[in-house]
Amino acid sequence: MEKFLSDDFLLQNRTAKHLFHGVAKELPIIDYHSHLPPEEITEDRRFNNITNIWLDGDHYKWRAMRILGIDEKYITGQTDELEKFKKWAYALPYTLRNPLYHWSHLELKNYFGVTERLQPDNAEKIYNHCNRQLESPEFSARNLLLNMKVEVVCTTDDPADTLSGHKKIVEQDFPVRVLPTFRPDRAYAFEQPEDYNSYLDELEKVSGREIRSLEDLLEVLEMRVEFFHQAGCRLSDHGMEKMAYQPASSSRLEKYFSTVRSGKAVEKNEAQSLTNFILRNLGLMYHKRGWVQQFHLGALRNANTRMFQRLGPATGFDSIGDFPQSLSLAKFLDELDKTDHLPKTILYNLNPADNAMMATMAGNFNDGSKRGKIQFGTAWWFLDQKDGIEEQMNILSNMGLLSCFIGMLTDSRSFLSYPRHEYFRRILCNLIGTDVEKGFLPNDPEWLGKIVADISYHNAKNYFNF
Amino acid sequence: MEKFLSDDFLLQNRTAKHLFHGVAKELPIIDYHSHLPPEEITEDRRFNNITNIWLDGDHYKWRAMRILGIDEKYITGQTDELEKFKKWAYALPYTLRNPLYHWSHLELKNYFGVTERLQPDNAEKIYNHCNRQLESPEFSARNLLLNMKVEVVCTTDDPADTLSGHKKIVEQDFPVRVLPTFRPDRAYAFEQPEDYNSYLDELEKVSGREIRSLEDLLEVLEMRVEFFHQAGCRLSDHGMEKMAYQPASSSRLEKYFSTVRSGKAVEKNEAQSLTNFILRNLGLMYHKRGWVQQFHLGALRNANTRMFQRLGPATGFDSIGDFPQSLSLAKFLDELDKTDHLPKTILYNLNPADNAMMATMAGNFNDGSKRGKIQFGTAWWFLDQKDGIEEQMNILSNMGLLSCFIGMLTDSRSFLSYPRHEYFRRILCNLIGTDVEKGFLPNDPEWLGKIVADISYHNAKNYFNF
Amino acid sequence: MEKFLSDDFLLQNRTAKHLFHGVAKELPIIDYHSHLPPEEITEDRRFNNITNIWLDGDHYKWRAMRILGIDEKYITGQTDELEKFKKWAYALPYTLRNPLYHWSHLELKNYFGVTERLQPDNAEKIYNHCNRQLESPEFSARNLLLNMKVEVVCTTDDPADTLSGHKKIVEQDFPVRVLPTFRPDRAYAFEQPEDYNSYLDELEKVSGREIRSLEDLLEVLEMRVEFFHQAGCRLSDHGMEKMAYQPASSSRLEKYFSTVRSGKAVEKNEAQSLTNFILRNLGLMYHKRGWVQQFHLGALRNANTRMFQRLGPATGFDSIGDFPQSLSLAKFLDELDKTDHLPKTILYNLNPADNAMMATMAGNFNDGSKRGKIQFGTAWWFLDQKDGIEEQMNILSNMGLLSCFIGMLTDSRSFLSYPRHEYFRRILCNLIGTDVEKGFLPNDPEWLGKIVADISYHNAKNYFNF
Repeated sequence: MEKFLSDDFLLQNRTAKHLFHGVAKELPIIDYHSHLPPEEITEDRRFNNITNIWLDGDHYKWRAMRILGIDEKYITGQTDELEKFKKWAYALPYTLRNPLYHWSHLELKNYFGVTERLQPDNAEKIYNHCNRQLESPEFSARNLLLNMKVEVVCTTDDPADTLSGHKKIVEQDFPVRVLPTFRPDRAYAFEQPEDYNSYLDELEKVSGREIRSLEDLLEVLEMRVEFFHQAGCRLSDHGMEKMAYQPASSSRLEKYFSTVRSGKAVEKNEAQSLTNFILRNLGLMYHKRGWVQQFHLGALRNANTRMFQRLGPATGFDSIGDFPQSLSLAKFLDELDKTDHLPKTILYNLNPADNAMMATMAGNFNDGSKRGKIQFGTAWWFLDQKDGIEEQMNILSNMGLLSCFIGMLTDSRSFLSYPRHEYFRRILCNLIGTDVEKGFLPNDPEWLGKIVADISYHNAKNYFNF
Repeated sequence: MEKFLSDDFLLQNRTAKHLFHGVAKELPIIDYHSHLPPEEITEDRRFNNITNIWLDGDHYKWRAMRILGIDEKYITGQTDELEKFKKWAYALPYTLRNPLYHWSHLELKNYFGVTERLQPDNAEKIYNHCNRQLESPEFSARNLLLNMKVEVVCTTDDPADTLSGHKKIVEQDFPVRVLPTFRPDRAYAFEQPEDYNSYLDELEKVSGREIRSLEDLLEVLEMRVEFFHQAGCRLSDHGMEKMAYQPASSSRLEKYFSTVRSGKAVEKNEAQSLTNFILRNLGLMYHKRGWVQQFHLGALRNANTRMFQRLGPATGFDSIGDFPQSLSLAKFLDELDKTDHLPKTILYNLNPADNAMMATMAGNFNDGSKRGKIQFGTAWWFLDQKDGIEEQMNILSNMGLLSCFIGMLTDSRSFLSYPRHEYFRRILCNLIGTDVEKGFLPNDPEWLGKIVADISYHNAKNYFNF
Repeated sequence: MEKFLSDDFLLQNRTAKHLFHGVAKELPIIDYHSHLPPEEITEDRRFNNITNIWLDGDHYKWRAMRILGIDEKYITGQTDELEKFKKWAYALPYTLRNPLYHWSHLELKNYFGVTERLQPDNAEKIYNHCNRQLESPEFSARNLLLNMKVEVVCTTDDPADTLSGHKKIVEQDFPVRVLPTFRPDRAYAFEQPEDYNSYLDELEKVSGREIRSLEDLLEVLEMRVEFFHQAGCRLSDHGMEKMAYQPASSSRLEKYFSTVRSGKAVEKNEAQSLTNFILRNLGLMYHKRGWVQQFHLGALRNANTRMFQRLGPATGFDSIGDFPQSLSLAKFLDELDKTDHLPKTILYNLNPADNAMMATMAGNFNDGSKRGKIQFGTAWWFLDQKDGIEEQMNILSNMGLLSCFIGMLTDSRSFLSYPRHEYFRRILCNLIGTDVEKGFLPNDPEWLGKIVADISYHNAKNYFNF
């Protein structure tokens, strides 16, 4: 019997252990997709207590607590922080087999040296233990990144953002590169005219340009893309139920845009045409600068109106949708590819039923021009767990090339999420090690070590032009 | 090499064995969803022979026999019962790797003490052996339930049912609680006006109320819900290709209803609006009484017209459909949730491609008010086999909380199906045991024993207000 | 640790080894679906070098090379054959965990006795070694088939084909039966009127009949079906995104057909009606002759316009689509079944999310008239790898009967693809052997050997009327 959370956690055989301890473990981290708040890095934030850094803002934990029947006041309410921590200590043992169980214990161990399992009877002790450690400068935002060997971290930023945080970090000469990511979702949210227009007002303000036409909008977006580029940005990110593909003539597009700009609603398919137009033109801007575009497809968001009205978005009331994805995605990518203007692209899907389709879709546009140009992205959100990570890598292996995979990211709002890279690397080493042990792969430690290192670090380093 | 069907069947390691033999095996059964005929319990039916109790009515076995090229006369025809049994004995060895192979041998072993494998050369011997046993009072319907430690069994009943069987069972003081389930599918089958109207006639008769409007219908349905409630019913059940969500104004709804009531057909989307309206109002009635509503989604039924005309429904000619599920389901649930009138709900899906979507959909409406309020239901029908059961529990573990799962049911028309609970518990113990052996879970027998007991029994006991 | 590619490759336990070495290994091959060019068999083609026979025409390898960033000139371009081979030798180690890695090394070993792994440093040596062997008569097209114990191979042929190659093979008394397959996709490609009409011109020419109406077309198709039948054809094959089901009246159908025949486009749903009509009538023709119809559903083809224009179809730019399949497929099959005219049918799906739906759909039309009449076909294209093959067999086992499965085919354009049958048989033996070792199946070598032999060879032999 293996010991829980030992040094060989998840490593089921000798080859896996050698690959992890000999190759993967010590490699730096390129965290090319995160939601870390840049200002917390600028100001090198210190955290008052483990509840702040660990529970506040973590909708994974919130969701689990709600399933357990825990009242909202202990989750997002105004309850005392120790009480909240105790509720989480009650909940954690019930999360067994959920990634929270592994993540949480890995985080307690790697950051705080806690090797006991958190449960009600040691909750207060561990609370105090962690809080004492948080007082040390070693637990400032920056040191949390440095101690995890983070080399690059990409935040997620709105085009209207001034990137003042990122700029300060550059001035401060912080050794971790903290780069913005261009996330223009609000720039094509045409279905809510009121919100949309107030967003365009923001864009007008930050760019100093009036937006009266689609052409104006494209010019402003290109100004912002260039502004981001100057600040080191090399990726964009887009979240959608499914890719918009609904071509329309220029005159129609201008008409739809005028309607929205005048505050009136357009039909759903008209909004899709506008979105399609914006995304296509953004694709051209990204391609010109050698950027990577990311698409996160398949989430059904804000499903619970009552809780949305109470708590707002991204509070744990989203799920997986079952939208038709392949045709619109294929056509969108093809449109850019026809003139060879398709940027490097990462496709992430939330519904695992789409894994095989996505993995093969990526293959359609890998044309030999750039190693791993179109990527089937790592397991996202609900899929970011051992089974999901394995399934993504198995499908990528079978239907693409695992060897060209750019690997893991945190996608997290928390400075304590870096063990997810370790978790991923252990799974990767175990997959390959198991294949070797079973004779599915030759026992060639050097070659397999290179493959593991590539996926853990070098592929991402070579893929992005950071 | 493990021995087939030994005491440690499906238990691949020591921890699994301890969990099953030490915890799960002896717990009572709460069979909260079955299709047992209540009158057979009322009259404590005795079975003439193994063909009656085992083959008649089992469309799983029928389907397998047809795939093997066995003529229908040996399946549902008028052939002699020994001949039919021999045909099944011929077929059974060919069902290897199908759940029928495990179920059938478990049933022969657990009920009849037959440890040989059934095959043509011992068919007649086993036929006679079983028939002799069936003569014993131990094999009456009631004793079959009692001997399997069934504590509660919920049947499936039409709103027009008088529940006379259930009432008699109560009067007879039978220690197993036999409770009705409200299955109102016919009350919203608006697409067949003729059948629908004759069904409303039945409802009128049983309720003594005329049904001239939608309002009348709701009143009658509430009368029947209350009638079922008085008889101990605490669950409803609904079978649909996909959830109906098509809101319409009251006046339109009344118009559609009048059309149907006058015997004329409405459009498909109009029928959907009516169904949506009925389901929503039923949801309010269920919520008021603390009931659980069950939705069985994704079956494509009666695909074979020729065999349907010959044999009727539920005879083995149904399959899995690939209908879009997420949007309508999310909106339906949200509609009830907006005013906090969403009842406890169990979502069952037949297409395993929807597993992850369904598991996360349940999470959207778990609001902390009740432990495990919205459940991702256990593997259903074609998925009710080792791989399907494991996949359901793995996905529930990864995307929800396995610890809050209310576990297994038989969904069967047969008094011989209770080994399916044992089968499920073995799989559950093996999953958890395997995780412990691999170091994915800590070796904490007490905690894991509690989790196993909860899923096997206590969660269901606490979830329903039986 | 198992040795890579040993005699016991993929066989993880004793039972698996016994089943493979004792039963499966030496059985002949019935390759009932391939794309081998019959004229290469007629002329008993000899291959100049390993690049010709191994890389030219293999879009699996091309696709992998493109993902690696290899320029097209080394893939489909005019580069020297040794250079191309060296590029592939560079690529192959990077394909680890992709089926190409196993297939390629199995092919090198089984045909050429190469047991080293191909990589850059031995590329030229292996190139020369293989080319020397290709000079021997043992490596002619016919001997490649004979040495692999191929008993029957079915090619894939257009209705307009004269089958002169097949006829010559018969005259030449070649012991391997090389039979045509009727693949009439172009006969219902109504969406491209120009191509369609030129195709009808071909059909007119080969049949000597004018095609002015749908009735004419059906007559010509029946002539061609009969012509194929006389040449030994017993299968048809059809490739579609999804099954066409869109009934229309005769008069409408004739009107749509006239429109297309006059060179004008019809609406998409009108084209679907025509396709549905043709497929239904073809089904009747197949049924009359005891043929098997095959449907390959779910591919999204020619996704990359730029590369399509450069290289044409089937060059590695196709992927998996996510089309709704169940309703139209069920209705199409039911329509033929209503009058009991449904031919034996094999359903292949490309999207693994459809596996369970397809496996159960097959069950809907298995009516006891013929063992395994409707088959859930073996893992196709992107799914033709160890995980995909296992998943297909596991789902078939759980939702149908593995014992009635007609097993593997190559679906290949290459004479070097026959180790795929060995690969499949190893996986099959390992699945069954593993079940025995775990006690999921009884240890009954004789019965399990029969099942393995049936799936490897006898089921296909008995299913088709070759």
